[in-house]
Amino acid sequence: MSDPVNAIFQRAAFIKQLGIVLDGYGEGWCETRLPVIESQHLQQDDFVHAGVVATLADHTAGASTYATVKEDEFVLTVEYKVNFLRPAVGDSLRCRAEVLRSGRTLIVSESEVYACQGESEKLVAKSMMTLAVMQRPKL
Amino acid sequence: MSDPVNAIFQRAAFIKQLGIVLDGYGEGWCETRLPVIESQHLQQDDFVHAGVVATLADHTAGASTYATVKEDEFVLTVEYKVNFLRPAVGDSLRCRAEVLRSGRTLIVSESEVYACQGESEKLVAKSMMTLAVMQRPKL
Amino acid sequence: MSDPVNAIFQRAAFIKQLGIVLDGYGEGWCETRLPVIESQHLQQDDFVHAGVVATLADHTAGASTYATVKEDEFVLTVEYKVNFLRPAVGDSLRCRAEVLRSGRTLIVSESEVYACQGESEKLVAKSMMTLAVMQRPKL
Amino acid sequence: MSDPVNAIFQRAAFIKQLGIVLDGYGEGWCETRLPVIESQHLQQDDFVHAGVVATLADHTAGASTYATVKEDEFVLTVEYKVNFLRPAVGDSLRCRAEVLRSGRTLIVSESEVYACQGESEKLVAKSMMTLAVMQRPKL
Repeated sequence: MSDPVNAIFQRAAFIKQLGIVLDGYGEGWCETRLPVIESQHLQQDDFVHAGVVATLADHTAGASTYATVKEDEFVLTVEYKVNFLRPAVGDSLRCRAEVLRSGRTLIVSESEVYACQGESEKLVAKSMMTLAVMQRPKL
Repeated sequence: MSDPVNAIFQRAAFIKQLGIVLDGYGEGWCETRLPVIESQHLQQDDFVHAGVVATLADHTAGASTYATVKEDEFVLTVEYKVNFLRPAVGDSLRCRAEVLRSGRTLIVSESEVYACQGESEKLVAKSMMTLAVMQRPKL
Repeated sequence: MSDPVNAIFQRAAFIKQLGIVLDGYGEGWCETRLPVIESQHLQQDDFVHAGVVATLADHTAGASTYATVKEDEFVLTVEYKVNFLRPAVGDSLRCRAEVLRSGRTLIVSESEVYACQGESEKLVAKSMMTLAVMQRPKL
Repeated sequence: MSDPVNAIFQRAAFIKQLGIVLDGYGEGWCETRLPVIESQHLQQDDFVHAGVVATLADHTAGASTYATVKEDEFVLTVEYKVNFLRPAVGDSLRCRAEVLRSGRTLIVSESEVYACQGESEKLVAKSMMTLAVMQRPKL
């Protein structure tokens, strides 16, 4: 698959195993979805584990930057902060990430994660992250 | 298994599947370890995925509070911030979390994550989190 | 002055001295403004100091919660995270804070700070904060 | 005054006006102090304002990096997160900042702020920040 954004979802073992699906992306945004699997994603009190929610927020934010970096560059997460607003209970999670500020070496994005149950959805987490634009080593 | 801290590592599907191991804990601290499995934990550039590192930091911080909460209480992560200091490359990750401030309703902890390769280890991430002490619903 | 939101701008010595002005507020939001004074607000490279920008973001977020807390309650900032997106250069700063999640004991808000120069304005900082709802001691 | 670290305390109007004093610094650390002035530093409930505490944490962290940047470089705060652990009540605040990770373009530091009353002192805030190393424009 030659699509570079799709590729980072396919080539990242942890993301593929979690089951995160790329829904769409464009200049400065990305949307993803994660069907919740009880035997894989829950914590000890039967909510989706905070680590799953944060990974979805982080990975989607990373993907939101790909339209703005050059072919010989890649991005690494420098740091992020995430607030868990409500317990994540649902059939699936949905995430939308948007770039707040795109610089030559640093990009700041934010992500919102929603828990979806049937037709209804609730904002369960919001995250803000700093990403560094790195030069790919020449072969 | 009646040990309540061990139980949260056994009962959380996501943690068990990741392979996080409880190494020790006491009043206001917890230590864990994660043997790195390439086919499970990596991202697209062959480092351990930030989501794995953050989950280790978060879950260990949660466990660091268990000695101080009462039997009819549990804790939920309100928010955390994590800085990724170096790419996480190694055979295993090690995490130590310590409580900075333990209040009646809020606890603040910090976690350090090290990547271990043979005898050497490097600090790869540091995290600070706020946890809420919740009352278990009466049966 | 009986307006409780106005009062927290008048009674906080640090805020009054900085010169932060309340522009408006309602259920779950607050807007403020700060005319920039060179001899007071700058850092060593002639931008508005990050501490001024963060204080504006934090105080406005605190005020955004006042419509939702009861008369015998007050709020304290538990923690915040702020990203500085561009150097803050301008005649004045403008801030809008909105409540993301209002719980019985915890409130999460976010703030955006803009630097204004004549007719133009730029987003210079974004912040996300957790606030605790506290009971006022009975007299 | 030719000392470059002292200079950033003298040349930053906001810091000078707050009254922050440089106590010492070296490779990867800095210590500062702030005598509390009631008419200047308090918030509406008579604690030191969170903005004062955060500014002390941020500025001291900035100064902790100066031993490691070159003469033609300067640092800007990219982002920080601060947890307020206890109300800041005291005669003075004390802050120690340490560099966690010093890279060519990014530095991560952490700061601890203590409130001092007579002989006793309490940890009132902890902060973690990302700083960018910038090239000074050539004259």
